[in-house]
Amino acid sequence: MKKTRKILLSEKEMPRQWYNILADMPNKPLPPLNPATREPIGPEALAAVFPMGLIKQEVATERYIDIPDEVLDLYKTYRPSPLFRAVNLEKALGTKSKIYYKYEGGNYSGSHKANTAIAQAYYNKEEGIKRITTETGAGQWGSAMSFACHHFGLELLVFMVRVSYDQKPGRKIMMKAYNAQVVASPSTMTAAGRKVLELDPESPGSLGIAISEAMEVAVQDPYTKYSLGSVLNHVILHQTIIGQEALLQMEKAGDYPDVVIGCFGGGSNFSGIAFPFLREKLLNDKNIRLLTVEPASCPKLTKGKFMYDFGDSAGMTPLLPMYTLGHNFIPEKIHAGGLRYHGAGVLVSQLLKDGFIEAKAKMQMECFEGGVLFARTEGILPAPESNYAIAGALDEARKADIEGVSRTILFNLSGHGHFDISAYEKYFEGNLPDHELTSSEVEEAISKIQLPD
Amino acid sequence: MKKTRKILLSEKEMPRQWYNILADMPNKPLPPLNPATREPIGPEALAAVFPMGLIKQEVATERYIDIPDEVLDLYKTYRPSPLFRAVNLEKALGTKSKIYYKYEGGNYSGSHKANTAIAQAYYNKEEGIKRITTETGAGQWGSAMSFACHHFGLELLVFMVRVSYDQKPGRKIMMKAYNAQVVASPSTMTAAGRKVLELDPESPGSLGIAISEAMEVAVQDPYTKYSLGSVLNHVILHQTIIGQEALLQMEKAGDYPDVVIGCFGGGSNFSGIAFPFLREKLLNDKNIRLLTVEPASCPKLTKGKFMYDFGDSAGMTPLLPMYTLGHNFIPEKIHAGGLRYHGAGVLVSQLLKDGFIEAKAKMQMECFEGGVLFARTEGILPAPESNYAIAGALDEARKADIEGVSRTILFNLSGHGHFDISAYEKYFEGNLPDHELTSSEVEEAISKIQLPD
Repeated sequence: MKKTRKILLSEKEMPRQWYNILADMPNKPLPPLNPATREPIGPEALAAVFPMGLIKQEVATERYIDIPDEVLDLYKTYRPSPLFRAVNLEKALGTKSKIYYKYEGGNYSGSHKANTAIAQAYYNKEEGIKRITTETGAGQWGSAMSFACHHFGLELLVFMVRVSYDQKPGRKIMMKAYNAQVVASPSTMTAAGRKVLELDPESPGSLGIAISEAMEVAVQDPYTKYSLGSVLNHVILHQTIIGQEALLQMEKAGDYPDVVIGCFGGGSNFSGIAFPFLREKLLNDKNIRLLTVEPASCPKLTKGKFMYDFGDSAGMTPLLPMYTLGHNFIPEKIHAGGLRYHGAGVLVSQLLKDGFIEAKAKMQMECFEGGVLFARTEGILPAPESNYAIAGALDEARKADIEGVSRTILFNLSGHGHFDISAYEKYFEGNLPDHELTSSEVEEAISKIQLPD
Repeated sequence: MKKTRKILLSEKEMPRQWYNILADMPNKPLPPLNPATREPIGPEALAAVFPMGLIKQEVATERYIDIPDEVLDLYKTYRPSPLFRAVNLEKALGTKSKIYYKYEGGNYSGSHKANTAIAQAYYNKEEGIKRITTETGAGQWGSAMSFACHHFGLELLVFMVRVSYDQKPGRKIMMKAYNAQVVASPSTMTAAGRKVLELDPESPGSLGIAISEAMEVAVQDPYTKYSLGSVLNHVILHQTIIGQEALLQMEKAGDYPDVVIGCFGGGSNFSGIAFPFLREKLLNDKNIRLLTVEPASCPKLTKGKFMYDFGDSAGMTPLLPMYTLGHNFIPEKIHAGGLRYHGAGVLVSQLLKDGFIEAKAKMQMECFEGGVLFARTEGILPAPESNYAIAGALDEARKADIEGVSRTILFNLSGHGHFDISAYEKYFEGNLPDHELTSSEVEEAISKIQLPD
């Protein structure tokens, strides 16, 4: 029997800087636009919503940005995170390839979201902000933010999508345990919420509505700011700690990946692991593939259109250049709630357009099959989102075996599935419908995109 | 701000031996007795239920027992486990004392149960056993055993107490994800189960009934054995890896505990962390206190009687010398399901009787208050069982502050509370009743103990 291998870094080896891919992109992304004037917006346009520390990171062009000491202190409670060689999974597959995974579910929040939650709470605290508002779907982001805010002495108000609030109480209670205020959205606290409730008092809510509510509360008070858990440049910057560590760990393992894989919602966990490897490709000609895996029911990267669109359903953000299915597109209710987002972040969109990364779409059922195989061999029960990365890794291993070669595969296991157990229940009941958005459905969705004149 | 400190061991520093306290006990425990003859039983009497490898450990007198390579290999996927200095908790308390905790919830199973599950599955596999039966209440033990059995190619049949099976589906589904067969107990699979169902078709079940069912299935087939997750000497032996590591980690921290604390159900997590420190007290005159914390509603150590009693409700085990509330005692349904056991293991019972360890009982509500304070300061949401250890640690810190001294406190954080979130929901609703078993209720319970003539 081969040994299961865990590759650890010491605290001293933990990277002290985040990596900013913007510095090394051959084609820089197009600027965000003011929806009314179609003129590029400057950083000051974001000041009502975000603290300056984060706005500076949003537009930063330096290659490396120092991680503040107080952020490092909290990172050190769970970082460096382990990187595993999945020898038992390899054995079960009978593959010649080597499969590695970086595990980001070992922290208090159970996912990679802690990496940016801690940083965002810190920069808000530094500027004297007293309260943060945010939205959450199933609650991974909300629970990551709850503890981070409490740690830095900030209040947190979370607008949780009503259907999740009612049906998935686990993370709601976790947020309360971390002292956050959690409100079902749509709520009567905001004009945006009241407007929805007037039309439909039984509205199940949506991430788009919850974002509108959280932003509305934030802009009304100078000591309250808003926080987002994916998509934006500064969020992705914070997640690069994952790939920075993984690079060192692969080196310790005496190996180097042929392909790096992440599941794809807004882009933060994929970019977090992949961008430091992409730097090695761009600067040092390292031959490597970077692969995103998205749900076939929400295929913005594989079937969406590259265009200016809003980041939120209500149209409160600037216009952003990205692959999108339309900001009002409502994805099927697959269990990987974190992947149910209509668009892709600006950085990933530009890099995909330029051919530096690849995208593929997978069905839900096959991803859960991969997740269960992973749990039975490697022990960790994965988050439904992470199952897409696993399925992508299994594809790569099987393809290599068919080609008769051995490849080195690295994927990001972004979180555990302890609060998503009902999705596994439905899997075992054979009650996980597959849904693939057809090209004509995509065309129809995109044709409905309405931008202001 | 002080830094949160994490004390890690490298894989090379991981202990390669379990520690057997029996070698160093001044008074050895009384022997187990045959209930019919009242004669001491030999190891062969256990052969229908356990494999010889584990029976040998049950009666072993050597001080150290080597951990087999295959067990070490699987341990290495999550061990050595981290030891933390709880600096943020200390700060919130404003205490002069230092509080450390060993975290055993970071593995696949979410609790210390993995340490013995892996070892037990291994020894069964080594002897050609094909299937294991066991019982589980809320499911921590069952899920730990499920993955371990699947890893070593064994089938697992889990009798899960009916009320948990219906009300707490999370760990049931986790066990299925690890490929175990899970049956609600009482079941129609066994004579014991059918007998209960005849009297009460709606029976909610009990741990005692589930044990009887699991043992009944095991003794009928030479390739099937039974497995228990606490109480027995070999189980406690496997858990000593916790304290063996913690000793090294406290040394790395340049510190030494004045008191070591664990919550108490059957004894395995407390003994696991405490016995290696007790060795230092017995052999090297180290001045240290060892404190168990049990629920006031199930106070076998603080109010129970030291006597021969059965380990299970149905009376299928040998008679064991232990502190007990009576093998038919049904504890209140507190949320720390793992602490709802009528008796204490033989080793802990003898050591308590001889004054080497201390015991105290705490109310549920205060323990959850401690657990929520811990979550908000240290980030990890504790298992309800672990909240008793936290409450014990908080008592020690507050007492030291009143006395005007600084003490070094170490406790075992035995698991996370991700699957126990409904207990926290009840806490926030103010719906966690306190219950203290009075001395007269204890007397009444003990007066009902019926042993065979």
